[in-house]
Amino acid sequence: MGVRFLKGHGTENDFVLLPDLAEAALTPELVRALCDRRAGIGADGVLRVGRDGADWFMDYRNADGSLAEMCGNGARVFARYLVDSGRAEAGELTLGTRAGPRRVRVPARGDVTVDMGPPRLLDARPVVGGVPGAAVSMGNPHVVVPVATAAELAALELTRPPDVVPPLPTGQNVEFVVRLGPRHLQLRVHERGVGETRSCGTGVCAAVVATSDADETAGTDETAGTDDTEWTVDVPGGRLRVAWNGAADPAAVVWLTGPAVLVAAGEWLVGDDRSVLG
Amino acid sequence: MGVRFLKGHGTENDFVLLPDLAEAALTPELVRALCDRRAGIGADGVLRVGRDGADWFMDYRNADGSLAEMCGNGARVFARYLVDSGRAEAGELTLGTRAGPRRVRVPARGDVTVDMGPPRLLDARPVVGGVPGAAVSMGNPHVVVPVATAAELAALELTRPPDVVPPLPTGQNVEFVVRLGPRHLQLRVHERGVGETRSCGTGVCAAVVATSDADETAGTDETAGTDDTEWTVDVPGGRLRVAWNGAADPAAVVWLTGPAVLVAAGEWLVGDDRSVLG
Repeated sequence: MGVRFLKGHGTENDFVLLPDLAEAALTPELVRALCDRRAGIGADGVLRVGRDGADWFMDYRNADGSLAEMCGNGARVFARYLVDSGRAEAGELTLGTRAGPRRVRVPARGDVTVDMGPPRLLDARPVVGGVPGAAVSMGNPHVVVPVATAAELAALELTRPPDVVPPLPTGQNVEFVVRLGPRHLQLRVHERGVGETRSCGTGVCAAVVATSDADETAGTDETAGTDDTEWTVDVPGGRLRVAWNGAADPAAVVWLTGPAVLVAAGEWLVGDDRSVLG
Repeated sequence: MGVRFLKGHGTENDFVLLPDLAEAALTPELVRALCDRRAGIGADGVLRVGRDGADWFMDYRNADGSLAEMCGNGARVFARYLVDSGRAEAGELTLGTRAGPRRVRVPARGDVTVDMGPPRLLDARPVVGGVPGAAVSMGNPHVVVPVATAAELAALELTRPPDVVPPLPTGQNVEFVVRLGPRHLQLRVHERGVGETRSCGTGVCAAVVATSDADETAGTDETAGTDDTEWTVDVPGGRLRVAWNGAADPAAVVWLTGPAVLVAAGEWLVGDDRSVLG
């Protein structure tokens, strides 16, 4: 018998989802085999459906087989599966993750919203290519660097890690960010240990937090004092929305909204049973 | 209802196989969507199972949606599916392809052998990086370039097309080839319009034909006059074997043998039906 799987993506950050595999069966070797883009199915990571008491638990693994704490794009795909499969009702769910419980809002159809937790502005003032960046933790470390124009953003060479001076102690993801309009950003991201990616949920949130903070400091927030807390962020893999209205409330969390698409359902073939091919 | 598919690979040249989709339904848009490695399933190409009179027809499409004539790695995966699914008996089959009918030998298990057609040594004498190459047609054009050592092969920079002087009129795939021993080669390949790939069936055959020809010219074929016609060729994605014993018989064909692995079977989700997720 094979291993049942789904493949899905959120803004082209893609996952193999395993709805009924026992935790002990998900070895690092199996994760690497599933995520291999030539010899396997291919994905950025694996999402195993587990249980956390009464809640669902998102057991997320990186493509290299290592454990990962939280992934905003993955959480949306995971929650979309739960609702589309009938395992959960549409509405608000709580997902267990290694970063703690996270709320997810899943309508019957369409975009999914996930609680990305509280951001933390760091004291570090790293410089990237002569430009001062902002350091933000979304659980993982980010350096957000403003870029003047979309053309300049498109021309960036991101095949190697950007030169961050000084680097954060744990290394960093780096987001290069252009303002397209009020609360509308476009970015490209270089992920620590991975390279440039099509999308990074925490990076998108970090970019909004850093830009919002810069606006507050400069007094240039065009929507300050309104109820409009939603930002739009364009990434290479699509469009995301971020709800954040500044750090006045230290307990405030960032909400990330975006597409979650299931594209295929199937069985990973194990052993010699070929009955599913007939 | 979704579209049934399999995913498989031959030496990490990977394919989405469609066992029961009508030809008219396989639009270039669908091919591109299926082959998209982030937003789709991901593959180098699509193999649709069709009919060619009494034979099976391998309707092969490149990932960009264009038609392709023949693919040695794809033909093995295609034939393995036919036998494993019970659609064909193990043994020798004839597959229709856009390059004409091709014989395929499929044991009940294990490696599959495919008739790659007759090679044609071309008159061109292109030079690559100061090294004279051999031009060979396997239906598609190849330039085969000898490299002295495996270390030198590993160090080659193949992120850009190699500089071939003069280029063949149709462009070319370029194989860089090290001799590891008698009838044992290792190569890396840059495919025309694609970049470096993990494996190229026609490129492996072209490398053997060019090396065999050079041996005959130089009188250095250590196995000349024996019945040993089999070469071993290591590519980044695995190991292939090629049966070829020189161009004495102008009707002789090259036989390519290697792995053909089906890794997953499933359904491409179309529309709103989510019944397969339950």
